Amino acid sequence: MPSEDSKPAKQKVQKITEQMAKSSLKQNEIKYNLKVPKGTRDRDPVQMTVLEGVFNTIIQCFKRHDAVTIETPVFELKEVLTGKYGEESKLIYDLQDQGGETLSLRYDLTVPFARYVAMHKIKSIKRYQIGKVYRRDQPAMTRGRYREFYQCDFDIAGDYGPMLADVECLRIIYEVLSELALGDFVIKVNHRRLLDGLFAACDVPADKFVTTCSSVDKLDKVPWEDVKRELCEDKGLSVQTADKIGFYVQLSGGIDLVERLESDESLNNQPSAKAALQDMRLLLGYCEALGIKDRIAFDLSLARGLDYYTGVIYEAVLKGFTYNPNCANSGSGEAETTSACDEPIAVGSVAGGGRYDGLVGMFDSSGTRVPCVGFSFGVERLLAIKEALATSDKNKSIVRSTETDVMVAGAHKGLIMQRLQCCRLLWDAKIKATMSHKNHPKLLDQLQYCETTGIPLAVVLGEGELNRGVVKIRDVQTREELEVPYTEVVNKIKEILSSKRQK
Amino acid sequence: MPSEDSKPAKQKVQKITEQMAKSSLKQNEIKYNLKVPKGTRDRDPVQMTVLEGVFNTIIQCFKRHDAVTIETPVFELKEVLTGKYGEESKLIYDLQDQGGETLSLRYDLTVPFARYVAMHKIKSIKRYQIGKVYRRDQPAMTRGRYREFYQCDFDIAGDYGPMLADVECLRIIYEVLSELALGDFVIKVNHRRLLDGLFAACDVPADKFVTTCSSVDKLDKVPWEDVKRELCEDKGLSVQTADKIGFYVQLSGGIDLVERLESDESLNNQPSAKAALQDMRLLLGYCEALGIKDRIAFDLSLARGLDYYTGVIYEAVLKGFTYNPNCANSGSGEAETTSACDEPIAVGSVAGGGRYDGLVGMFDSSGTRVPCVGFSFGVERLLAIKEALATSDKNKSIVRSTETDVMVAGAHKGLIMQRLQCCRLLWDAKIKATMSHKNHPKLLDQLQYCETTGIPLAVVLGEGELNRGVVKIRDVQTREELEVPYTEVVNKIKEILSSKRQK
Repeated sequence: MPSEDSKPAKQKVQKITEQMAKSSLKQNEIKYNLKVPKGTRDRDPVQMTVLEGVFNTIIQCFKRHDAVTIETPVFELKEVLTGKYGEESKLIYDLQDQGGETLSLRYDLTVPFARYVAMHKIKSIKRYQIGKVYRRDQPAMTRGRYREFYQCDFDIAGDYGPMLADVECLRIIYEVLSELALGDFVIKVNHRRLLDGLFAACDVPADKFVTTCSSVDKLDKVPWEDVKRELCEDKGLSVQTADKIGFYVQLSGGIDLVERLESDESLNNQPSAKAALQDMRLLLGYCEALGIKDRIAFDLSLARGLDYYTGVIYEAVLKGFTYNPNCANSGSGEAETTSACDEPIAVGSVAGGGRYDGLVGMFDSSGTRVPCVGFSFGVERLLAIKEALATSDKNKSIVRSTETDVMVAGAHKGLIMQRLQCCRLLWDAKIKATMSHKNHPKLLDQLQYCETTGIPLAVVLGEGELNRGVVKIRDVQTREELEVPYTEVVNKIKEILSSKRQK
Repeated sequence: MPSEDSKPAKQKVQKITEQMAKSSLKQNEIKYNLKVPKGTRDRDPVQMTVLEGVFNTIIQCFKRHDAVTIETPVFELKEVLTGKYGEESKLIYDLQDQGGETLSLRYDLTVPFARYVAMHKIKSIKRYQIGKVYRRDQPAMTRGRYREFYQCDFDIAGDYGPMLADVECLRIIYEVLSELALGDFVIKVNHRRLLDGLFAACDVPADKFVTTCSSVDKLDKVPWEDVKRELCEDKGLSVQTADKIGFYVQLSGGIDLVERLESDESLNNQPSAKAALQDMRLLLGYCEALGIKDRIAFDLSLARGLDYYTGVIYEAVLKGFTYNPNCANSGSGEAETTSACDEPIAVGSVAGGGRYDGLVGMFDSSGTRVPCVGFSFGVERLLAIKEALATSDKNKSIVRSTETDVMVAGAHKGLIMQRLQCCRLLWDAKIKATMSHKNHPKLLDQLQYCETTGIPLAVVLGEGELNRGVVKIRDVQTREELEVPYTEVVNKIKEILSSKRQK
């Protein structure tokens, strides 16, 4: 055994290596703060398995809708981001000036997409993009709010028939949320121009539209009384104006609501409201043609925070779904909380977006407009729910974080070369296989590894069997063993795996 | 048509919206620098299709070898990166101090992996990770050197039998490069401790090992004469010492070279060299058992720049493969350059790595050692080659950047509701389908879209046919049309697609 012979030599070598390390790696003495930056986290193999499953469902749906994908850098020139996020701009991460350009980490995927469309002079594109974005927000990690988090965006750019691209976005949200099987959901829909007209009809001064919008946007989290107080005390609106707003923004419905608002005289005097209601009528008709009408709610309280929206806006909410990340028992709203858990919390919106017809033009000095509509999945929330479900007590089967089908095990000491050669056979045949990297692993440990990681088969090699030209194939779960000629091992394993898959 | 009626209203609304935008989006007047940060780039849909293919091959291979995957944040506490990269540390990107922690963008995936292993107190793991890393290097984009680029890492952590984890890494590099079908390749292998012993045998002072190593590392790019000059003039070694080094580092071979060096008297006096040669003998034997011996070259000139390597090191090189990113005609070394192209250049190494047994311990105040071995694929180089091949003249078939199977087309004006309803049928059946978002698209334009993007089938809807309860299914390539009952359209399309796939 070479490892035995060379012990003194190895010790000397290690000493030299350590001395070298000390001289070249000067930080050796520092006590490390073993943590990740505030508001970020590592994702472990089980979490990655859940992520792969969710992303795969989403990507397959995007591909079913004729989408391409693109990628943009994780940072942009700072000026690209400036002036796109209103009050939220203070949450942008900047890079240190190390000589050269002034750079910022992307805050979402929408602004980089608009920059991409303008820069490459694209007239129409339907694209998805999945990537991490960065916000220096106060992290609330137990509630799933991180400083580094995934967004998963789908957007359609181009000048099309009204509401056609918009309704496809709603259909995609519908398909993904249905396939993810997270229970009942609703997609709230509203229109920025309707809000504008509505504010005008309520006598909000034109220069207070944006700030009024951002107050109304809070209505899904706080009661109307609080929003009203903010509008009057902080934003300086009259009580009468606030009450008028309050009347409208608490309305919700379907095509009936469109009709009711169409006959509302004060809205009728507002061209922007009138145009928006025509859009809404068309959109709801298209929703019916696409079979998603029952999941859509025209909801006047929906406002959305970001400055760049110009038309239809929407947000999907899981109905009655609560989860508690500190507790394995997250359920589907059956209000059964155990004492070990905190109060379950509503997950909030899991997708949101809208039309932003002005954003691309902001990047083009000639002002060429490229109308856009799209949305982001709140994928971190979807992942948190799926993780909770995957690891809950109700789900007793293990979550496999590998896909390995076969363990090549030694029945006794050594057999290193024999195990390597057998792995080679399997890998050459594209079979997912592994072996212990120990020189002398115990059979029990090797089989235990199969059980804990879910590997269904083991090829057990033994000196005696090998001399007879045979090996054993063992079903890890049933513990049944089958002796086969070594020359037949690949074919036999393929046969067993394919019959297991059909079950 | 709502879009016609509401024109004056729409114009007014747009004006209001624009005014709002001007007041809230203060940067409106700035002329945008329409570009991405230096050394970065966008990836377009065709490039993304190539990327998906290459990543998929690599990930499937990692999964075939029992690997899990993890994720770490894109930035780390600066102190985590400090002191790990020697002279290269100056290339690290720092984030601006906006109050809080001092953060840096990750420079590779190896140091974050070691931090992960130490922080989560992991004793053994076999993981892959794909992600972007950041280096403020002088970009050479025509040669594929970027400041933001993908790394694709595979590592095995744990205390195992010598060389067993190491040889699996070599096997994985072999499998991926074989499957990517990029022609002949060689994996050069060397050992850091052998270099240490060799330098000692050549009378290099111990405190100059690291710097000597980094000079020798340049041997794949510059001739020995230049390295020798650097060793003597910049590093202060004697000519005699440099000549001795020169004798060794120009040797390359297989097990024969191990034997030759084992009988070299001055190396024999160096314990680290002796131990390293035992490792190499074992490794080459294992390579034979795994069927990859012919692709392995024991090459004493291989040094690898990074400070953290402590044992076996390796690097894979595509033999005779040249490419020229400015030129579509990149080939497999057949030395046929057209006048339109620059001189083709060697792609350099496409994978590299080694053993780094000390890195995890640097993060653990109790100094717990977790030995590691692993590698990165130089995936940007692999992508550049694959892109050049995919878009070369020789490859006349289009590179599809979507997977859409069916276009729902209107034979004449309008038919909006009918097209939507037909899409709904197909999407409900999980068929990849699309329709034009125009209100009145021309049939020719719709079929043209199929041809340019590679959609194989069109469902053509016409008023007359719909009244008879039938639709036409058109094969875009052959232009054959088939009339089927509307109720049969889903089944018929599935049937045609499955027979196309079998071809």
